Amino acid sequence: MGLNTINIKEKFNKFSEQWSPKIIAQMNDHHIKLARIEGDFVWHSHKDTDEVFFVIEGELRIDFRDGSVTLHEGEMFVVPKGVEHKPFAENECKIMLLERAGTVSTGDADSSTIIEENDWI
Amino acid sequence: MGLNTINIKEKFNKFSEQWSPKIIAQMNDHHIKLARIEGDFVWHSHKDTDEVFFVIEGELRIDFRDGSVTLHEGEMFVVPKGVEHKPFAENECKIMLLERAGTVSTGDADSSTIIEENDWI
Repeated sequence: MGLNTINIKEKFNKFSEQWSPKIIAQMNDHHIKLARIEGDFVWHSHKDTDEVFFVIEGELRIDFRDGSVTLHEGEMFVVPKGVEHKPFAENECKIMLLERAGTVSTGDADSSTIIEENDWI
Repeated sequence: MGLNTINIKEKFNKFSEQWSPKIIAQMNDHHIKLARIEGDFVWHSHKDTDEVFFVIEGELRIDFRDGSVTLHEGEMFVVPKGVEHKPFAENECKIMLLERAGTVSTGDADSSTIIEENDWI
């Protein structure tokens, strides 16, 4: 076991791409990821996993077919598996994601373009 | 599905007990918990789950049989399952924990006193 701590701010400084979650840790069969997001994502759902959104910096809106939630820094929301959602951020927002390892961010939105995301920083 | 966000600071304001993790969210078969800790905990390990420590406020040291890590605000560490550890905080430290649901904080330290922790806030 290594004794390296994971510093969230330092990890964010290692990438600038948006909508490209980076894995920072694994816990059991789950991954903890960081992402920078801005603008509209696609409608999608994840049939095999709940997904936790935790805002590190900025503001995130998650739209559902029947409502929406707005998250500020230090706020969290769990999107249950199977529920269609569309993240949106007017300005760049830094988020932490928790979900089952192997989850692709577009879920079932377009299976023809799904690639395995396994991008550690 | 409810549309209530989980605000970490508000959740911490709902309890003051130390060493008494409170569940704030479930993701798949895992729980996200908050805890206030101060002083020394007991040596223990969790044979069935990795455990993530994420410091929200303060400073946390985790001792291992062969070393230690010190975490500051915004820093995280994953203690692998089966690894003996002992958390310590000189002053009160606020942490977020991620682990398999049903995990008791003392792990295998004293099975005669293990009670199921299922304390939501």
